Amino acid sequence: MATQATPSMTTKEIADTLTKLCSVGKFDEAMNKTYSNNIVSMEAGAPPGESRDAKGIDAVRKKAEWWTTNHEVHSAKVEGPLVAGAHFAVTYKLDVTFKPQNRRFTMEEVAVYKVADGKIVYEEFFYNM
Amino acid sequence: MATQATPSMTTKEIADTLTKLCSVGKFDEAMNKTYSNNIVSMEAGAPPGESRDAKGIDAVRKKAEWWTTNHEVHSAKVEGPLVAGAHFAVTYKLDVTFKPQNRRFTMEEVAVYKVADGKIVYEEFFYNM
Repeated sequence: MATQATPSMTTKEIADTLTKLCSVGKFDEAMNKTYSNNIVSMEAGAPPGESRDAKGIDAVRKKAEWWTTNHEVHSAKVEGPLVAGAHFAVTYKLDVTFKPQNRRFTMEEVAVYKVADGKIVYEEFFYNM
Repeated sequence: MATQATPSMTTKEIADTLTKLCSVGKFDEAMNKTYSNNIVSMEAGAPPGESRDAKGIDAVRKKAEWWTTNHEVHSAKVEGPLVAGAHFAVTYKLDVTFKPQNRRFTMEEVAVYKVADGKIVYEEFFYNM
């Protein structure tokens, strides 16, 4: 008997999975369940000489690890998703301390995600620098 | 007595104004009330040799006029907004006919807007080509 392929998650299923896991702080599990190995992650800006985009799951995990190591999260609020075709949008509102400078601040950003073959292949973050 | 300046609309006020007007088909009024003269509008893609972005209110109005002239809108659904800081996201789901080819299709897209000084200064649309 042939093995049945698991059907790909729809954009809405991916969006709901990501949103639920992120809202309880399970960022790693969110990444494992929803990100393609070929994910491209685009920031609103980058330090001089650095790139706005991280390409591939290894580069994106490294960026996430840097962020997690350097920030203490006091509270996180995730709103959305708004789903349209292969894309969806979410907002993140974070109250964090940047540990190297012991500087507490709030971050508010819109994130847009693109889904292909049941995985997130592109994400872009919109916030003021 | 000095004239009091009208306070700028907040991101949420701009987002609500745009969303309400667009959901009843008042796209021109939405543009007049919420767009900066220096608006930059970015499409997901462009025909070969053309630009993805339109810069300035005149170019953006021209793009909107082309769209309105060439499409018949059977139904339009606007969802959102999701607001975060100076940005907000909306989704549009349109059932339209492209009149030159008499071709009916549905469009689903995520739109992200950036607000500065109480006006929309940037918009970007995410959809599959």
